[in-house]
Parts: sequence; structure tokens; C-alpha cells
Amino acid sequence: MSANSDALSAGLRVAVVGTGRMGANMARRLKDCGIQVVAVSDRDRALAEGIASEIGALVPETLSAVTAAADVVITVVSDDAAMLEIFGESPESLLEGASGKLFVNCATVSPAVHREVERRVEARGGSSLEASMASSIVQAREGTLYLMCAGRPEAYDRAKPLLGLLSSAMRYVGEAGRAGQVKALVNMVMNMNTAALAEGLGLADALGLNLGMVREVFSQTGASSRVLMTDGEDMEKRDHACFFSAAHAAKDSGIALSLAKEAGLDLPLAAATLGQYSKMVDVGLGELDKSGIAELTFKARFAARR
Amino acid sequence: MSANSDALSAGLRVAVVGTGRMGANMARRLKDCGIQVVAVSDRDRALAEGIASEIGALVPETLSAVTAAADVVITVVSDDAAMLEIFGESPESLLEGASGKLFVNCATVSPAVHREVERRVEARGGSSLEASMASSIVQAREGTLYLMCAGRPEAYDRAKPLLGLLSSAMRYVGEAGRAGQVKALVNMVMNMNTAALAEGLGLADALGLNLGMVREVFSQTGASSRVLMTDGEDMEKRDHACFFSAAHAAKDSGIALSLAKEAGLDLPLAAATLGQYSKMVDVGLGELDKSGIAELTFKARFAARR
Repeated sequence: MSANSDALSAGLRVAVVGTGRMGANMARRLKDCGIQVVAVSDRDRALAEGIASEIGALVPETLSAVTAAADVVITVVSDDAAMLEIFGESPESLLEGASGKLFVNCATVSPAVHREVERRVEARGGSSLEASMASSIVQAREGTLYLMCAGRPEAYDRAKPLLGLLSSAMRYVGEAGRAGQVKALVNMVMNMNTAALAEGLGLADALGLNLGMVREVFSQTGASSRVLMTDGEDMEKRDHACFFSAAHAAKDSGIALSLAKEAGLDLPLAAATLGQYSKMVDVGLGELDKSGIAELTFKARFAARR
Repeated sequence: MSANSDALSAGLRVAVVGTGRMGANMARRLKDCGIQVVAVSDRDRALAEGIASEIGALVPETLSAVTAAADVVITVVSDDAAMLEIFGESPESLLEGASGKLFVNCATVSPAVHREVERRVEARGGSSLEASMASSIVQAREGTLYLMCAGRPEAYDRAKPLLGLLSSAMRYVGEAGRAGQVKALVNMVMNMNTAALAEGLGLADALGLNLGMVREVFSQTGASSRVLMTDGEDMEKRDHACFFSAAHAAKDSGIALSLAKEAGLDLPLAAATLGQYSKMVDVGLGELDKSGIAELTFKARFAARR
């Protein structure tokens, strides 16, 4: 069976490199869908062996053996350096034997690194796609990720059937490196809307209004937003179990502000939002969910911390 | 027919005091619905006579004659002073002969004034309801306002059938004065979300991304909001024909920040938003729609103004 056959065909062999919580859940999901997840790999070999034994995959000794075993290699590694290493010039890297193979790179790394990886993979006769995720571990497990994809349109078309098993929606956004930019924008706006909602509910609370009523009115007016639906009740009930941490929000808002600075743009709300999430980290609330920003805007809550 | 009969009953007589664009459109809408709009009144008599001749209403010489002519009096005046005057102690005010009558007060005035008007009306044996509007002149004409109502539950129940003709949704929010507070919160959060969206699209533009694609991705992720739907495309296309002006946004954000200050709350995004809308006023963009805030965050646009 050729490597560009439909992912839904029985014979497609998939590997996952980087088996943290996201990568492991993507592997589980694909396995559930009847896909052969033939190999997994991680810098932390014990981590890879755990998920490998759970889903019946191999943990090859080298990355080149991962490439050899699979038609499609999904990578979910931690940062720029890790990406450049797995796609490095070592004869044991993923690039060895990459001809005809498809690499789907899901980590949030810099645009320049996505472009460089695409260049290296194509030089070896393979295909590369950036697939940035605007959702989290729960969605990875359930196959309901939102995927922003960037690279060659042909690579996107080839990856689509497989990515369809992992996502409830996906969107092609442009050449390699663009998906990470769009993700940075999504998270920047999401974080601002979240910080704004926390201010509105904090003031409503200070005025002695019923917050359930206020949330309902918000939902029916120009104050409505996706984060009102996902975070509004959690802000009221102080349920800040983590899906997307305040520390992560601070990091993402920082990335977006750096892009803005390079572009010579002044973005006062993005700056104020970074200030709030940084403050959460400073006062020891960085591991709360992003909804925990309400701990700064509800007067009695923040006063109680001082 | 008694004054508390169903508004849908043929005999209900309605008057409108304050016939600016909102009041005039509410009168037109009620007339279209088959309601007898028997009288209209405005400080500017010529304004009242214009709408009166259009819908076949009278323009009584005194406010007490307005009360006498109607079962329900809708008021839409400009500020606290105007409210206290039309419900004043003069024998020619709306209070004269108020017994059994229902007053529905739609102006955005201070909570204390709404409470005082309710006290005065009830002292004369009438009923009073605060009905604050989270929408604008187009919705008034079409009967699709969003109404936040406050006062006695009985007054709300009595006004409901009539208000149903003016609105697509309404919500009882508490005692007199509460509706204005909720409206201030709605507009504060709406303004913040609008300012946030303008920053996201401004950065997307600076990065050379396709804004239609970015808006679509926003709509499918945590970056989605009501203002993305109402203002996103206008920001891209620079269509800032006014529905809700930047000057109005600055005023409303100022009201909300005053409430926050009184409550001892620090709301950095609300402050940054007030800063942006005030800047629009300062640079002569105050009469643009609130979507015009994108003129500050799209680099080439703002640079062109300097």
C-alpha cells in the first residue's frame, strides 16, 4: 500500500513522536479508530514504553527506525530545539528514509522552524505539514481537536483523512509557519475576552447582582463570547481545575505581544491581559485554569489573599 | 377597559414622552402592531409634532394631559435632570392623575433616579418600570430590542405584553435601578471584546494573514464572540457607519469604571478600553461606530492619520 493512500484504508501505518499527554492521547484516539499505530517514541523512553504497551506499538531504538516503520509520522515535541533535533542531520533522525513519508508536526514552535523542517523533509523527498491545535488533552483523547494546518496544499490533502479522526474541525491557513501565527492570535483574543469577562463578573459581584442572571443577559447581548460559555460559570463557582493554565495564557499572550512589537503595533488590551496573567503567576496562581483570572477581579477573593 | 388589561387588547392607549430617534421608532413600531399611540410629547415640540402627524397622535399641551390620555406612558428622555422634571411636583407633570397608570422608563439614567421616580409614581397610586435597552434605533423600529427590566415584579408582568411588541427578548433583573447597572456591565464587556477583536485583527493584518480566514478560525475557537459576528467584517472593510458610536462607548466604559472605582476594584482591561475609545474621540473619530476602533490597531491606517 502506498504512503498516500487514504488514512481510512486498513493498511495505513502511523507513528507518534513525543508521547506527552497530547501525543499519547492522539495515539490512543487513532488506535480506537482502527488505525495501526505501529511505533511511538519519546526522549523519555519510559514514557514511550508506557503508551506503547497500552496500545500494542513498538518503541524503536532510533528515529530513523520510526520513519521506516510508518507511512505517517505525527510529531508533538516541546520546543524549537527538539524539533530541529528530531529532524536533524544525524543518520538516525526522522529524515533518514523520509522519501514518500508524511510528517505532521503538531507542536507549537516558531514559524521559522516549521519552514526549515519543511525544507529538510522535502529535500529528502518527503512531505511535511504544520498542524497546530487550538484545544487540549481532553479533545485529543476524544478526537475533537480544532486543527489549523499550514504547508503545501498537497500535504494538507494527504493528511486530511487521518486528521479528520483527531479533530471535529480543521482549516488550511497558508504556508508553513502560518498555523502557529494563527494559533497565537486565537489564544491572544481568547485570553483578552477571558480577562474582560472576569472584570465584568467581578464588577457585577461588587454591585451585588445575581451572577447567573448577569451571565444569562451577557449571553443574549453584545457581551456574549465563547469564553462566557466555557469559563463564566467556573469564574462564579471558583472551579479553576486546569484545562489551559494561567501560566500558559501568560506565555501565549507574551508570544503575541512579541509579534506585535516586531510589527511596531501598540496593543494596550493585550498588554493589560499579559499583565493580569503574569500577576497570577507572580502571586502563585499560575497553575489554575485561565478562568482563575477571576480570583484577581472579585474583590473579596483577592483581598483575602493579601 | 382597565389600565392593566392585556396590551394586546384593542383598547390599550399608549403615549410616548421623548421622541428622539429611539422614542419615535418605538412609537412607529407600536402603531404598526395595531396599538393606539394616542399621544406623544417632547421638550422640542416640533419634533413631537413630526412623529404625531406621521402616526396620527396628539401632542397635548401638558404632560398631565399625556397621562390623562393614556393607560401606559413610555418615557425615553435624555438624562437624570429630564427624568426628575417630567416626574416633578408641578401640577402639569406626568404624576398628575397617575393613579392606575403604568410608566415604562427606557432612558439610561442613574439608579438613584429610577428609584426616586418609582417612589413618586407609587405615592400617586401608579406603577413604574425601568426598561433599559441593550440595542439601538434599528432594533427599536423593528421591535427587536433586548430589554432589561427592573422594578416591582407586578409592574413587569403588567408591561410584558406591550414590551413584547418592542423586543425580541426581555429579562427581569431586580429592583428599580438594577437594569441600568446591568446595561453598564453589558456595554463594558462588549466594548472590551470589541477592542480585543480590533487588536487581534490588527496583528493578523500586520502579519500578512488573510483576515477572512482569521475571522473564520476565530469563530470556531475560544476567540469567538458576538462582536466578531457584528463588527469583524466591518473592521476589515472599514465600514464604520454608526450604530453605536465610539463616543458612546467611551461614555459607557466611563460609567462602568466609575462604578468599579466606587467599589474599590482595579479593572485594567476596562481602563485600557476606555483609553482607546477616548483616544478615538481625541483624534476626531468619536462619531464612527465602535468597530472604528480598528482604525487605531491597523498599523497603516493609524500611521496614515499622523
